[in-house]
Amino acid sequence: MPYVTVKMLEGRTEHQKKALVEKVTDAVSETTGAPKEKVVVFIEEMTKNHYGVAGKRLSDE
Amino acid sequence: MPYVTVKMLEGRTEHQKKALVEKVTDAVSETTGAPKEKVVVFIEEMTKNHYGVAGKRLSDE
Amino acid sequence: MPYVTVKMLEGRTEHQKKALVEKVTDAVSETTGAPKEKVVVFIEEMTKNHYGVAGKRLSDE
Amino acid sequence: MPYVTVKMLEGRTEHQKKALVEKVTDAVSETTGAPKEKVVVFIEEMTKNHYGVAGKRLSDE
Amino acid sequence: MPYVTVKMLEGRTEHQKKALVEKVTDAVSETTGAPKEKVVVFIEEMTKNHYGVAGKRLSDE
Amino acid sequence: MPYVTVKMLEGRTEHQKKALVEKVTDAVSETTGAPKEKVVVFIEEMTKNHYGVAGKRLSDE
Repeated sequence: MPYVTVKMLEGRTEHQKKALVEKVTDAVSETTGAPKEKVVVFIEEMTKNHYGVAGKRLSDE
Repeated sequence: MPYVTVKMLEGRTEHQKKALVEKVTDAVSETTGAPKEKVVVFIEEMTKNHYGVAGKRLSDE
Repeated sequence: MPYVTVKMLEGRTEHQKKALVEKVTDAVSETTGAPKEKVVVFIEEMTKNHYGVAGKRLSDE
Repeated sequence: MPYVTVKMLEGRTEHQKKALVEKVTDAVSETTGAPKEKVVVFIEEMTKNHYGVAGKRLSDE
Repeated sequence: MPYVTVKMLEGRTEHQKKALVEKVTDAVSETTGAPKEKVVVFIEEMTKNHYGVAGKRLSDE
Repeated sequence: MPYVTVKMLEGRTEHQKKALVEKVTDAVSETTGAPKEKVVVFIEEMTKNHYGVAGKRLSDE
């Protein structure tokens, strides 16, 4: 606790995801006062055909 | 905003998913008053071995 | 199945929420082929101090 | 209703997942009083590169 | 890990919720092999005006 | 996009939540390359009687 879920389009590199988990954990720990050991991060990736804005999927643009 | 997530079994065609995003966006915009440009839709697909009703997975029926 | 979650700011009337559930259910049923009886809709409301875009909460604008 | 989501690392066997759905459904039905027929279980699997604790992904350990 | 979310209508007693967390944790631990100490359970309650089946909210029935 | 959800126990101040949204947005933008304007953050608060670890709710400890 806290539990953080980051939902984004697929395509980021492993290097980027590693840094994402590190930096988000730091940001959450610093601002909430929760110890870093307690911060959990989940990454969820979407594909362009499963994500739509304004009624249009990204895969249809 | 609003953010809509539709969770369903895999198997729909791209044509169906495209129409789903369009029609759900229209329905949300019309009833909530949010502009279409602000409506976001996520599709999440499940497999039959990860979905159970009454204690039984669909893949076990 | 399908399961639909609509996440939005609080403030809509009961009349709007009722229409939202009706119209979204119709849209999902028509486009996915799932019978209306199988469509489930959840509404989740957010407050302005728990929702931020571009690093700024709506309650801080 | 109730709707139960179990999020865990990938790697469990089909036998384990089948038992998981059965036993969790029983536990929820017995303690909430909901009939078993109404209990829905979703399994969501994570990969080690999308799950981090204390700022470190499991895939980086 | 695993992380379990139980979403249900409000109205259960504290006694029922306490038992729910205990029994679901046991069920998940036994079937997945995860140690009990690692199992996390979240309860999420819904109100009848935010939950609809077949296009109709429970509060409208 | 990305969409970030931070789930934590209630009790943080508005000042902490404001800083949380700012710092998490910065961390996500820097590591994923997404422009800050595109980063959305949701805060979800839990109560101690709806959160259990190792089969025990925090409210029962």
